[in-house]
Amino acid sequence: MSRKILVLPGDGIGPEITREAVKILNACREAGLEASVEEGLVGGAGIDAHGVPLPDETLARAKAADAVLLGAVGGPQWDKIEDLAKRPEKGLLGLRKNLNLFGNLRPALLYPQLASASSLKPEIVAGLDIMIVRELTGGIYFGQPRGIEERDGEKVGFNTYIYAEHEIERIGRVAFEMARARGGKLCSVDKANVLEATILWREVMERLAPEYPDVELSHMYVDNAAMQLVRAPKQFDVIVTGNMFGDILSDAAAMLTGSIGMLPSASLNEQRQGMHEPCHGSAPDIAGQGVANPLATILSVAMMLRYSLEAPQLAERIERAVGSVLDQGLRTADIAFEGTAPVSTQAMGDAVLAAF
Amino acid sequence: MSRKILVLPGDGIGPEITREAVKILNACREAGLEASVEEGLVGGAGIDAHGVPLPDETLARAKAADAVLLGAVGGPQWDKIEDLAKRPEKGLLGLRKNLNLFGNLRPALLYPQLASASSLKPEIVAGLDIMIVRELTGGIYFGQPRGIEERDGEKVGFNTYIYAEHEIERIGRVAFEMARARGGKLCSVDKANVLEATILWREVMERLAPEYPDVELSHMYVDNAAMQLVRAPKQFDVIVTGNMFGDILSDAAAMLTGSIGMLPSASLNEQRQGMHEPCHGSAPDIAGQGVANPLATILSVAMMLRYSLEAPQLAERIERAVGSVLDQGLRTADIAFEGTAPVSTQAMGDAVLAAF
Ligand SMILES: CC(C)[C@H](C(=O)O)[C@@H](O)C(=O)O
Ligand SMILES: CC(C)[C@H](C(=O)O)[C@@H](O)C(=O)O
Repeated sequence: MSRKILVLPGDGIGPEITREAVKILNACREAGLEASVEEGLVGGAGIDAHGVPLPDETLARAKAADAVLLGAVGGPQWDKIEDLAKRPEKGLLGLRKNLNLFGNLRPALLYPQLASASSLKPEIVAGLDIMIVRELTGGIYFGQPRGIEERDGEKVGFNTYIYAEHEIERIGRVAFEMARARGGKLCSVDKANVLEATILWREVMERLAPEYPDVELSHMYVDNAAMQLVRAPKQFDVIVTGNMFGDILSDAAAMLTGSIGMLPSASLNEQRQGMHEPCHGSAPDIAGQGVANPLATILSVAMMLRYSLEAPQLAERIERAVGSVLDQGLRTADIAFEGTAPVSTQAMGDAVLAAF
Repeated sequence: MSRKILVLPGDGIGPEITREAVKILNACREAGLEASVEEGLVGGAGIDAHGVPLPDETLARAKAADAVLLGAVGGPQWDKIEDLAKRPEKGLLGLRKNLNLFGNLRPALLYPQLASASSLKPEIVAGLDIMIVRELTGGIYFGQPRGIEERDGEKVGFNTYIYAEHEIERIGRVAFEMARARGGKLCSVDKANVLEATILWREVMERLAPEYPDVELSHMYVDNAAMQLVRAPKQFDVIVTGNMFGDILSDAAAMLTGSIGMLPSASLNEQRQGMHEPCHGSAPDIAGQGVANPLATILSVAMMLRYSLEAPQLAERIERAVGSVLDQGLRTADIAFEGTAPVSTQAMGDAVLAAF
């Protein structure tokens, strides 16, 4: 059965990093992956071409695809747009919501070759391997009512943090399954001492626990989780949390590794259709210079193969190839240590291809 | 004019750490501070004695006081209480709200004597000195509507993230003034690419900026702020943000120092009436053993003197005394390095008193 892959390069460094990832994708096709690859517009690129961050055509093609590979969206030229519906981010949020990609997997993995890039002491982060499971289509990101309006003679801005049981349950199951397949430990992060929405969250996680007797479930308040990530991150195996806390904690966790240019992510729906993208942003300051690190995007192709295209062997081949270029000492500027000459985006992509 | 100070020891290690702080407070009275000191019940201690975390009498006395010194609230024996209104935390939240203590100051200061306690590399945190200004009486902590209810045959949990212009403006002013008195840099943290409530936040901060031409205002999304705190925390001088983001970021920032047992906080209203408390919690696991670090509470007395009682010289004397016991090598267990014998809570308090 032939699969459909839609590539959405987006903005900033998006086009140059996805270009390298597509090379690897093509190598996978030569290695037996039956898939077609096409490209579309999203984010600022969508705004510039069609006036909207998520053109109808892009959405239709994304829905018809088995997997989407996204570069990154956003940049200063669209930052002044006040209407949230017309900003590049809305392209991303619209894809997540319309494809129902509620399950966001964000690994924070320290590559031993890059251990010294971390701002944390080596003994604190050596061997770090956390998987953050973030709910991606609910919570305060999408809750209604929301807006800015006049009340009692002044403006008020408001959003709604809301979760229904079924939303919590389905992300809970993704996380329990993930913990089962990994180290067997699941930490659910909430603010159940203050927020009712997260009291329900904790309740549903507790209710699921007996179905996964092989998984050890714990709970942590979000403020404490932010502290523990800094203090002793290796205590965590899998973390599950809502959309907003997941946004904050997954970025903090990613930064613990010191090399966010290495970290991929997957966003999946019930059918395992997925959008796969690097954790880093569009880095407008270095866009178009050919210096960006394509490895997170290449590793996002690996996640795509593993989670959406049922091709785990190819995923492993990519991951091994990335490990091998790191072993060879190849470094783009973001992960280069003093004294090493950095390689270009393209040279890095070519090296992974050669090692594949 | 004689001042009134209300001491609320609270739960866990609260009583033992406030005991040491009160010794210093008494030394300040001997040194000329005209103030009366009385004690009251809050948190679990309030629940156990009167069935409520914030007894009416405590609230009335807190309102009548110029300043409140709080130990800590909460513990496992009250964790199973499902009704948020009856939990120890409600004592804290009730005091904040009823005294209108909207301005929460949380310094993240690295003591050079304790630099090695940080989980971050020395060069990343040496000299760290951040002041987080957190809005404390609004946002999602207090927003209505909130609750858990049945909708379409299932439960939903919801909270409201809401800010009115005047709430943003008054905390903004506290932060601009603070930046002016410090390094002149203010970073406002929001999620204005997703949340309308924080679009208004950013708008109001921008509107205030021209009144403080000597302060350099910048904006950062909360996920990026969590990353930047881990990556390069010394880029920050003063950070201003809402209640929930402030909860998360101030704990992460505090942990960067590696010694949260050292960090005080102040919560102030428009009249500078304040509640002063350590950043750490009630640490039920070590309560009653006489090993807790009283320095954060003692330093909270210094904040009280500076911000609520207009006695900055006494505040400085306390801070110098704390520096001097650290120079002497005295360490409670939480900040003791391998090979040093830790001193008790009481011995630490006595040492500060001797150095005062
Ligand atoms: C760009 C932004 C809307 C997005 C989010 O907040 O989810 C990003 O920070 C992320 O984490 O993917
Ligand atoms: C105990 C809790 C309600 C409180 C908060 O969330 O504000 C605490 O974490 C804090 O930061 O003072």
